[in-house]
Amino acid sequence: MRDADSKIEEVLNAVVGRAANRTCPPLLARAVRYAVFPGGARLRPKLCLAVAAANGDTDPGLSAAAGAAIELLHCASLVHDDLPCFDNAAERRGKPSVHVAFGDQIAVLTGDALIVMAFESLGLAATDCHEPQRLAALLAISSRAVGMPYGISAGQAWECEPKVEVSHYHQAKTGSLFVAATCAGAAAAGVESEPWAVLGERIGEGYQVADDIRDALGDAEALGKPVGQDEVNGRPNAVQELGVDGAVKRLKTLVEEGVESIPACPGGDLLKLLISEEAKRFLPKSLARRAA
Amino acid sequence: MRDADSKIEEVLNAVVGRAANRTCPPLLARAVRYAVFPGGARLRPKLCLAVAAANGDTDPGLSAAAGAAIELLHCASLVHDDLPCFDNAAERRGKPSVHVAFGDQIAVLTGDALIVMAFESLGLAATDCHEPQRLAALLAISSRAVGMPYGISAGQAWECEPKVEVSHYHQAKTGSLFVAATCAGAAAAGVESEPWAVLGERIGEGYQVADDIRDALGDAEALGKPVGQDEVNGRPNAVQELGVDGAVKRLKTLVEEGVESIPACPGGDLLKLLISEEAKRFLPKSLARRAA
Repeated sequence: MRDADSKIEEVLNAVVGRAANRTCPPLLARAVRYAVFPGGARLRPKLCLAVAAANGDTDPGLSAAAGAAIELLHCASLVHDDLPCFDNAAERRGKPSVHVAFGDQIAVLTGDALIVMAFESLGLAATDCHEPQRLAALLAISSRAVGMPYGISAGQAWECEPKVEVSHYHQAKTGSLFVAATCAGAAAAGVESEPWAVLGERIGEGYQVADDIRDALGDAEALGKPVGQDEVNGRPNAVQELGVDGAVKRLKTLVEEGVESIPACPGGDLLKLLISEEAKRFLPKSLARRAA
Repeated sequence: MRDADSKIEEVLNAVVGRAANRTCPPLLARAVRYAVFPGGARLRPKLCLAVAAANGDTDPGLSAAAGAAIELLHCASLVHDDLPCFDNAAERRGKPSVHVAFGDQIAVLTGDALIVMAFESLGLAATDCHEPQRLAALLAISSRAVGMPYGISAGQAWECEPKVEVSHYHQAKTGSLFVAATCAGAAAAGVESEPWAVLGERIGEGYQVADDIRDALGDAEALGKPVGQDEVNGRPNAVQELGVDGAVKRLKTLVEEGVESIPACPGGDLLKLLISEEAKRFLPKSLARRAA
């Protein structure tokens, strides 16, 4: 994955650099860089590029832009989710969250600008693309994942409702962007995206379970944010429901189901191996053995 | 303009209806409808459709989606701009602003969802379109207008800087979406967009001057929000700089320059007439005579 890692950082650097240039208001430019670099695990763009690669990656510029767009949308959601009117989180990725470092105004604008930048970068990559109809597919996939009624905006809005269906909430708030990652990887390579949704769904749900485990066990370092927040914020958590062992087992099943769902494609075997290996890192080291 | 008016409302209804459906969190769905309906003057989508019509409007579905996208981006910027951490405006379009009616969380999410919806609707319209490369142009035009370094996010971020160049600020915060309106109208009709930027620039600047006049003269009804806000917020205002008569004269010159810049096109004469007529409504009735 070394190649994919550096490719993702390179594209993100190019996209952010074009927007946060010398004509941009300096605070906003700094805040946007701060929100994107250094990143977390970049799981979503890695997944996007891996699916594109498994399908021949026939337009590497477009798949890279799609991965970057999904990561920018993810970063935007974190910035807005940390705001005082939402989680009021003081830290993210081991440093002060954007609104703490730059103020609430700049934090709102940083999220807005990152959303716009994501779609803009798709459009710019598609300009050089030989098959412009791929852009419409990528736009549909990524906007569905962050908008309403099925995406992150809706997921966050469920937190404002008196009654929430837990699976609905997680699917919108976390799962949707993993589904977008696998589907966008396929669409950028010119392959039908729909059959790739299950892989994204299962990995997204697995990631959520792993996040719940880290939150419940207090693995603040791996989480990059304060632990025990689900309990503080009264959110559903898989460990409360299933216990630690049950949650670890559930994670294992989800990854297996995801891997089994992978459609026939030139690089399918390699992709299966890759995903099984990467998923092991979802858990704290102390638990990884139990999942083996 | 009766036809254009009803077409705009129809498309906005369809786009918002698809997003704010029964699977959407109810509060968010209501807030998004509240932010878009009833609208203001819908100047930007009208301008977009008028430019498309002047160029033969060869893809009416796409031009309508482009106009709707620009209006949704405009609505998003109003919702976020009214937030307590920005202008803390209690009213908009003669009713409580979104955060007053629905709370800060839902207001942030409403803005986010409207931005996403704008781009999503472009993508959906382009799926049925015979010339998919028009989508890349529309995406570039509309994202530039609301993102950074040149768009609304940047314009609002200039308010957080100790030093602001006034023209830079207005161009980003108000002008950019008028430029997007004229350019998107051209691009949706398959015509080169760049020559249409000056028309958008001049109308946008004229609109800003008219807004300054209404703010300074206290025409709260036409403004749909409290007056005297520029003085309260320490913002630059054309009336302070030029006096009322000077500002009215400036507005007239800007509209004339805009009309003169209109590139040769099948419906150019009608468009010139239409814009001159519409621009008269920028001013309070008591002043319209002076501008005649």
